[in-house]
Parts: sequence; C-alpha cells; structure tokens
Amino acid sequence: MSTNAPASARDEQRALLADRLARTRARMEKMGVDAAIVRSTDRFLNEYVPEDESARVWLTGFTGSMGDALVTAEEAFLFVDGRYWIQADAQVDLDLWTVVKVRLGTGLDQALIDQLVAFGQERTKKLRVGFEPDRLTPRVLDRLKEATTAASASATWKPLFPSPVEAARGSERPAPKDPEIRALDESKVGPTVPEKLVVLEGLLNACGAEALLVQRLDEIMWLTNLRGRELPHQATFKCIALATPERILVGIDPSKVPGSVRRAREGVLFMPEAELWTMVGRKAKRRRVAFDPANNTVQARGQLEKVGAQLIEVDAPLQPVRAKKSVSELRVMKAAFARADAVVEGVIAWVCAEVEKGERLTEASLAEAVEARFRESGALDLSFRVISAAGKNAAQIHYGEPNPRRVLKVGDLVLLDTGAYFEEGYATDLTRTFLVGGPKRSATDEQKRIYTLVLKAAIAGMRAVLPEGAKGVQLDALVRAPMWAEGLDYNHGTGHGVGINVHEFPPRVGPSSQTPLEIGHVFSIEPGYYKPSFGGVRIENLCTVVPGPKGFIRVEPLTFSPLDARLIDTRMLSSDEKSFLARYQRRPASPARAVKKGRTPTKRPATAKKAARRPRA
Amino acid sequence: MSTNAPASARDEQRALLADRLARTRARMEKMGVDAAIVRSTDRFLNEYVPEDESARVWLTGFTGSMGDALVTAEEAFLFVDGRYWIQADAQVDLDLWTVVKVRLGTGLDQALIDQLVAFGQERTKKLRVGFEPDRLTPRVLDRLKEATTAASASATWKPLFPSPVEAARGSERPAPKDPEIRALDESKVGPTVPEKLVVLEGLLNACGAEALLVQRLDEIMWLTNLRGRELPHQATFKCIALATPERILVGIDPSKVPGSVRRAREGVLFMPEAELWTMVGRKAKRRRVAFDPANNTVQARGQLEKVGAQLIEVDAPLQPVRAKKSVSELRVMKAAFARADAVVEGVIAWVCAEVEKGERLTEASLAEAVEARFRESGALDLSFRVISAAGKNAAQIHYGEPNPRRVLKVGDLVLLDTGAYFEEGYATDLTRTFLVGGPKRSATDEQKRIYTLVLKAAIAGMRAVLPEGAKGVQLDALVRAPMWAEGLDYNHGTGHGVGINVHEFPPRVGPSSQTPLEIGHVFSIEPGYYKPSFGGVRIENLCTVVPGPKGFIRVEPLTFSPLDARLIDTRMLSSDEKSFLARYQRRPASPARAVKKGRTPTKRPATAKKAARRPRA
Repeated sequence: MSTNAPASARDEQRALLADRLARTRARMEKMGVDAAIVRSTDRFLNEYVPEDESARVWLTGFTGSMGDALVTAEEAFLFVDGRYWIQADAQVDLDLWTVVKVRLGTGLDQALIDQLVAFGQERTKKLRVGFEPDRLTPRVLDRLKEATTAASASATWKPLFPSPVEAARGSERPAPKDPEIRALDESKVGPTVPEKLVVLEGLLNACGAEALLVQRLDEIMWLTNLRGRELPHQATFKCIALATPERILVGIDPSKVPGSVRRAREGVLFMPEAELWTMVGRKAKRRRVAFDPANNTVQARGQLEKVGAQLIEVDAPLQPVRAKKSVSELRVMKAAFARADAVVEGVIAWVCAEVEKGERLTEASLAEAVEARFRESGALDLSFRVISAAGKNAAQIHYGEPNPRRVLKVGDLVLLDTGAYFEEGYATDLTRTFLVGGPKRSATDEQKRIYTLVLKAAIAGMRAVLPEGAKGVQLDALVRAPMWAEGLDYNHGTGHGVGINVHEFPPRVGPSSQTPLEIGHVFSIEPGYYKPSFGGVRIENLCTVVPGPKGFIRVEPLTFSPLDARLIDTRMLSSDEKSFLARYQRRPASPARAVKKGRTPTKRPATAKKAARRPRA
Repeated sequence: MSTNAPASARDEQRALLADRLARTRARMEKMGVDAAIVRSTDRFLNEYVPEDESARVWLTGFTGSMGDALVTAEEAFLFVDGRYWIQADAQVDLDLWTVVKVRLGTGLDQALIDQLVAFGQERTKKLRVGFEPDRLTPRVLDRLKEATTAASASATWKPLFPSPVEAARGSERPAPKDPEIRALDESKVGPTVPEKLVVLEGLLNACGAEALLVQRLDEIMWLTNLRGRELPHQATFKCIALATPERILVGIDPSKVPGSVRRAREGVLFMPEAELWTMVGRKAKRRRVAFDPANNTVQARGQLEKVGAQLIEVDAPLQPVRAKKSVSELRVMKAAFARADAVVEGVIAWVCAEVEKGERLTEASLAEAVEARFRESGALDLSFRVISAAGKNAAQIHYGEPNPRRVLKVGDLVLLDTGAYFEEGYATDLTRTFLVGGPKRSATDEQKRIYTLVLKAAIAGMRAVLPEGAKGVQLDALVRAPMWAEGLDYNHGTGHGVGINVHEFPPRVGPSSQTPLEIGHVFSIEPGYYKPSFGGVRIENLCTVVPGPKGFIRVEPLTFSPLDARLIDTRMLSSDEKSFLARYQRRPASPARAVKKGRTPTKRPATAKKAARRPRA
C-alpha cells in the first residue's frame, strides 16, 4: 500500500488486501493444496504485465514488475530482487506478508525453491503444491520438482486453472482493451512474412517438425510483421501462434483484427484460440509440433497433448534468427534511436537551462518532460518507465519512482534512463548522466573522476574488436577493465539485446555470457557506478556488431546523444580514447540538432548519415 | 626415422620398425582384439616420458612428447597435434603409418574416437578394442565408450596388461635408473608433511573417505616434500601413493630410498607397491578410498576393487590446494625464477655480442649455451627442451628441434623459451624474443610494431586488476585486447599454472577457462604472434595473484629478465604502459646483474628484494 495515502484510505486498502488473501486461502483449501505459487507474469509470459491485470498485484498490493508469491494456510511470502526490496516493504502489509529479499545471483525461482524445501522438510505429510499451468513453463516446473525432490522435500504438484487467486478475484478485472493491431509496411521493415516462412521451414525441417508453437509475443510480432498497443511498454498484442511453413495461425478473437491488417498479411490467418487447437488436432496422422519447454507454458503443452499432437522439444529456435537484425530492421532502428537521441539531448539542454534560470524542476517533472517530448516526437509509448534519479538517488540501479519532491539543483548529477516505441515498434534505450546547470558550471573532481572512468568503460565497449565467435563474457571484461584497474565495478550486466522488446536475448554481455556475439546483433553497453554516499553514473548506448579485420568482429555504436563534456577529465583518457570521443561527439545526435546548427552533415560515415536522416513524423 | 641418418641406417631402422609392428599385430591376434590403443603416456601419467621407455616411441619411431597410436590388422594410425605434424611425417614410415593431423581444438582423444567410430560403422561384427589399463584413466575410457556407443559403432573393450606392444617388446627396455630421491628442507619449503596431512584430513572428511589414492607424481612430491631425478624435465620419481590423515604410504622399491630421506620424513612410509595394495585390503571393514577417475588409472581402480576397497569418486581434491602456493613456496620459486632470469639475460647478451663480433652461432649452439649456463647456475635439469627459433622458424609455436645449421644473423629475431629445475624442484619458464646484434643495431618497423603489440598484451596481463572470483577467460580477454584491436591474435592459451611441473592446472588463462584465479596461484602470461612470412614473437613471464583493492585481486609479475628495448616502439604505449615498463625494466633481473653493475638494489619493493637475493648455490 502506498505510504503517501491518508491513514483512512490505507486502513481500507489494508482490509481489502487481507480479505483477498483470506478468500484465496479458502479457494486453496477447496482445491486441496497446502501451498500455491502466484507468478508475476501473465499467460503471455510478459515482462511488463499491466498492474490492473496482474493477479499478484491484486493479491499483494505490490506493483513492481517482478516478484512472485507463495501462499500457505498460515504464511504468505513475496520474493523480490534488489530493485524492489524497499518498494515491497512499503507496499505490502507486513503483518500478512513476509518479504523475501533475494540477492543478485540467487534468482527468484531459487528463493521459491528454498522456501518449498523448507516447508517440505518440516512436514510429515507430502506437501501439495498448486501452480498456474498457464503462467509456468515446463522448464521452471521441472526445476521446481527436481530441486524439491533432490532435497527430499517431496511434494505433489497440482495445476490449478483458474488459479485460487483468479478464482477468488472473480470478475474484479479490467475490461479488455482494443489491441490496436497494425501491419508494418514490409517494403520498409523486412524480411517479409513469406521470407520468414522460408527460414521457418528450414528450422522445422532441422528438427523434423511440421509446426512451431510460439507464445513469446515479440516473436509473434517478428514473425508476422504486426504490432499492437495492448500492453504497457510493449509494441505487442495478446495472442498465441502456430507457425507452419505455409502460414502463421494467430489465435485471437478475429473481431479485434482490422480488415486492413487482415488484407495486408496473406501469410497470416487469424482465428479464435480454441479453433487453433482444433486445427492442430484435425490432421489424420499425429502432427509433429515443435515445443520449447522454456518459452511455452505447461498449459499449452497440455492443449497440444489433448488434441493428439506429437511434441518435439526444441531450444528457442527463433531466438538466434530474430537476434540478427536485417538491413531494413537496422535502418528503422537507427532512425528510432536518432529520434530518442534528440529527445534526450533536448530535454537535458532544457533542464540545465531552466534550473540555471532558477526554475523549480523535480525528478518527476523531468520524467514527465521526457515522456511529453517522446510523444511530440512521434513515440507511441515508452519502452519502460523513465528512470530519473538525482544525486544520491542514482545509487539505486533501478530507481523506479521519480520523486515529485526531489528538486534538481545546480551541481546535481542526474541519471536519466529512457526509451520509447515509434511506429515500427522497435524499442529504444539510452542512459545519460549529466550535471545540472548552465554550460559554465563545473563538476567536482570526484564527479569528473567517476564519470570519466565510466566513460572509459563505455568507450572500451563501443570500439571493441574481438575475434569471430567471441562471447559476451569477453566483451564484458574489456568494458569493465578500465574500472577494475581502479578497483571499481558495477553489480549488473554490461548489456542486453534490444529489439521489439527492450530486453531480448541473445545477446547478453555479462560475466557469465557464453553465447557468441554475431554480426547484426543490437545490444546495450551500459557500464555504471553506484555508491550510496555519492549517487550514480551510468552511460548506456546501443551498439551493433559489424565485420572487423579478417577473422574479427567490431562493435559500432548506434546512439549518439552527446556526452556531458563538463564531466570528462580528458587527462584520464588515452590518445585513442580521446580521438574516439572527438569523433563520437562530432556526430550530430539527431537531425534536429544538425538542422538547428545550420550544418550540413557531411563527411560522416554512411551509418551516421542514415541515423541522422530525418525520420518520417 | 631421422632424415639426417645415412641411407643404410635408415633402411635398417625401417626394417626394425616394420618388424616391431608385425610382432605387435601377432600379439593382438593372440589376445583376440581387432584394434589396440597405444598411449604416449606411461603408468605414471607423465607429460614427459623418456624416449627409451616409451612404448609408443618403440613402436612408431616418433619421439614427440605427445601422440597416441591405434593399430589394427591392416592399418596403423598416429594422432598428433599441430606441434608435431612435420616431425611425425619425418620420423614414421609412411608406408606403414597414417599420420592423423589433429587440429587445435579437436583433441587427440576426439580424433581417436572418430577413427574408432569409422571402424565400428564399417564392420558388421562388433569391434574388439584392446586398451592399456595402466595408462588410461576411467574418465577417458568412459568417454571412448560413450562416444562410440552414441555413434552406433558398438565395441567391446578389453584391458590388455601387458599391452600387445609391451608383450612384443619383451626385454627391449632400458635398465632402471636411480631415482635420486631427496628430501627438501621443510623449514625452507613448507607446509610440512604433518601440516599437509591436516589439510588432507579435511578433504577426506568432506567426501567421507579414509584415504586418497594419488597417482600424479607432482602431487605425491607436493604431499611428501620429496623430489627425484628419475624422469626427464621433472623433479619427480616413479611411485604411487595412498594418503591417509596419519601418514602417506608411498609404493616404491624401498631399497631405492636413501636412509637419510626415510629418516627425514616421519609421516611418509615407503613400501613395495604390492604391499600397499595388501595394506588397503587388510582392514576388517571395507575401507573407503577416494578415487579420482580423471587422475587415476583403470588399473589402479581394479587393484582397489580387488582388495575390497569401497571407492568414493572425487574430483581432483588436491589440485586447488596445491595450486595456491604457500609463502615459503613462493619464496623458493621466486629465487629460482631470478636465477633463470639471469641465465636468459646473460645468454642473450653473449649471443648478441658474439654475433656482432662475427662469431658463428646457430639455433642449436644457443640452446646448448642455455643448458650449460643453467647447469653452471645450479640447475639439476631443464623443465622442457629449449625452444630456440630464429627468423621464420619462430612462426612454429613449439619449435622442437633447434637447427645446428641455422646460423644466427644480425637483425634476426630469435624466440628463446626456456626453463629449469633447481634444488627445490619447482619449474621455471620464461620466453624472450630478441634482436640479434649489438646494442646499436636497430630493428625494422615491422619487428618493432609486432613486438610492441605483443608487449602491450603482456603488460595488460602483468598489471591486470580483476574482481575476486574472476576466471581465466576474463584475464585472457584483457591480455588479448591490445592485439585484437589491431586484428591480431594467437592460436594458443594465454597461460598455464606452474609448480613442481612446468604445466599444472588450475589455473588456466584461456578463452574457455572457467576456473577462478586465486591468491597464490602462479602461472604464465605468454601472448605471442606467429606468421610464416615473418616469424614469431612471444613474451612469457610468470606471475602470481595478490590481493588488490577491496573486493579485487591483482596480477603481479615474478620474472624480470629485461625486455629488448630496441624492439619497443614507445609511441605505441600509453602513459600507464610506459610507466609500468620503466618500473619493470629497472628491476634487476638477477642478483648477478645488480652486482655486476655495482648497484645496491635499494628502494625496490620487498618482493623484488627477495627475488634478487643471491640464492644458495
């Protein structure tokens, strides 16, 4: 419950949540389970579930994007990672809930396992655990089963659909939204669906399957070249797909699909989900369907088995294909990044000027300004909530709630991490840390030292050359090395893939990333520094991989929003770093900037020209 | 057979080897096998087996350190890696043998498997494969079995002892040597045996065993603080050990052990090997013996099972302990490294002066001079054959045979890779590449560019700071990065552990090294560059890991033989690299040098002082 709410509202909210938990427990008893797992995901396995749809938010009051719950007759646990330790304590009723604060590297699933093991070992009778088959993958379910069995905490596992929480919740759900489905212009964002079907046929032949079940929404969007606006911070719509070499069957209420979309996509067939399952079963001989136990649900597996399909286990077959962006994808992504560069450059210039003039701006007003400027610039949505953290607040890696009372002062360092979606539905993601105040304001020695170290790390990544086949762990080491040399490090990965979702894998750039970096991958490089007594610095740029010298690959930056020169101690830079930086800062971050300054963007490499081209409004 | 031998001698040798192969095949038929594996190792699983003892050398004529053979009734294969492609072709009779040239990354065992699979799939009847149980580990045997089964090349596996080769060889074996066993002064090289027994007790308790079977000779030397001179390039003697928390039973003919050694080691009991097995079996209840399937032999497992021991599988329990050198081990190792530094510095100065004067020196005479100077300096043996490669010859990473006809000329780059053993029996290992000629000779631009790039890589390793728990792969990336930046790389690991053996693991520093680097590890950092049209450059130094800033570790060099300043293009170095290099080159490489120059070695860090202290002769 929000700590900002007045006391009476808080009491009311508290009573409401206590009642929901009691009703859930009553359902659990009726369903014959001792414990129930409540996942934070929905049946589309989304990263961002709308608050008003989330069963976990409804039950616990905790609104963070990630955090699973476990309920028994006497106890209730909420598992959250370091981003949400403070928020969870503030939002749940601590008389009802135990907040389990999971450390980095442990993982929520492991914490859940540990708790189940503790229960199982306490009891004399077998523990009966209920789970949501529509929200759990077979991979996770197997892991839970194996781990509890290995610890001699034997349990029986019962799929509950609807779950006790959903049963207790009944009709307390938001009305369905218009998914606002749109079809991309395939002449501008390819490959076309028929071209993708050819690739798919190869993948299916390789594993001897006739069709592939796809539940990850970004993969369905990628396959169909469709986009939607149904879910927050996503360019997707809710559906399920069965992809065959001939066509992609999309399970969705067909009335939600505009006729124009239907006409634009010949290779895509829309039908109610139930009909999709029936179609799978209709074939005379058993149909061989490729099934990915890590990216499909237990419920979907059950559906396939029910209609008599023969399941062929596969390991994320679309991921490596989707990760390598096509020429046209790179073109539209660069255009989107250039717009985002301009938004961030503009808003930082505005904040600095306003505060210098004596205007009162806060973390929250900065976040609002970012969102407004993105919308003006043609963005359809943000790709995640703006992180706007001033001074010591920036020591929180994911500072979730820009504070309307934290006023921005001259001399503050502000960490601004933002992203959006434009028409083509590819996420942008960019972090800049800047000094509040006019161009003549100067930073402290410590601010400059820290910023320049993080910058050295960022540059090491953006100009890295690696042998073909190099893995994320190797690039990660190159990025961290300048900070390690000074005994500094950051407690998060160096980078993540970016595509239709703002986080997609592969690639990963981190200390244990064993997947190779490949030409066409698009990912972030985002070294940082975080210290409670100081605050935080992060510099995040999106990059791609291009061919290097024979046998080598090269990282190339795709985002060019200018870096705050007042924070750079050039004496700490090598001559190579200095010349990289000079080239980088010369690149107009955006068409707007080039135009404003009356410069014709000449003598820049082709990629920069493309990135700088004025995008369609 | 040597290509240098006169024609008649070559014919004689050829007939001899043909006869040996025929006799081996006759034995195979009698023993009822279709194929026989001939390993290059001996029953002590050594890296370096004396040529005159090696069954594989006796059978094939090939004298390289590594290379397994596979014999059938019609065919005979020798599997060698890139180091030995040329040598194997020159030494074996190509009418009798097929030399299988195994590429880096494949592994000899995999090549053997591929060949067995090919045989198995050709045949209609099950393949009967004979193997040497005294030379194969259960781990390798399991791998052979699994891989052939997986490829549906089913085979029966028959342990043959003595092997068909040994049976055919009969008494054609060298007389046993005096192992020259010596006991180290435990006040100078600790921990003492009783201290090690305490550690051992902890390891045994952890796995619920009462004793540990140890077959790796360097581990037996480490446990007992004994050394020997029985095997080439090793400070070991042939034996087997069973370690209990009370004492270490060493299986060896006790008459070979001097009384003084026996008296010096109360915790060590010498007995004939047969008696050792009997003692294991004597206990009333079944004795639980820890057994490492990757570092013990199939034969030893059979022995333990025969005497009724209960085997507990363990994973190299002594390795991590042995890898972390004690304070006194580091002291004696540094003293040995300082002597080796001086030998290499002296011999390079001598070569350069002699050639400048017009003397005729060759790769071979350089190698001989190195060995002579090591002996003068108190070395008991070399830790491997000297690699002395001039000009283009240095493009071979392991140039095995210094050429007595390759004259060293002014302007040549020479790669000199050497190591030795002194009294305390720790290996040294050092590589320097130098320009032949007097101090005023200058190198070509290409020589300087390549040398300086390799130097940058070496410096990156020697001054690396990494987070605690960092793995070899991370250090490897930091070392290679300066070369990657120029599109260059080297096709070997960056480093290996060094201890009683010149190659020990952990640690490893390479692109797939997942074991953490720990304080007290001693290992090489040896980046290089190899190109047939140019030659080769390698700079190898031994280093250790020391505590760094809070939460970090730091690499520290232990070898200081000077780097050839004529080959360094300082314009290619950053200011940090320059100041590291200046400090590094100031350090006297050896006591001899400091004394010769009449300098008192003051103002150097404590470690350098210790390294520079004149060792006992």
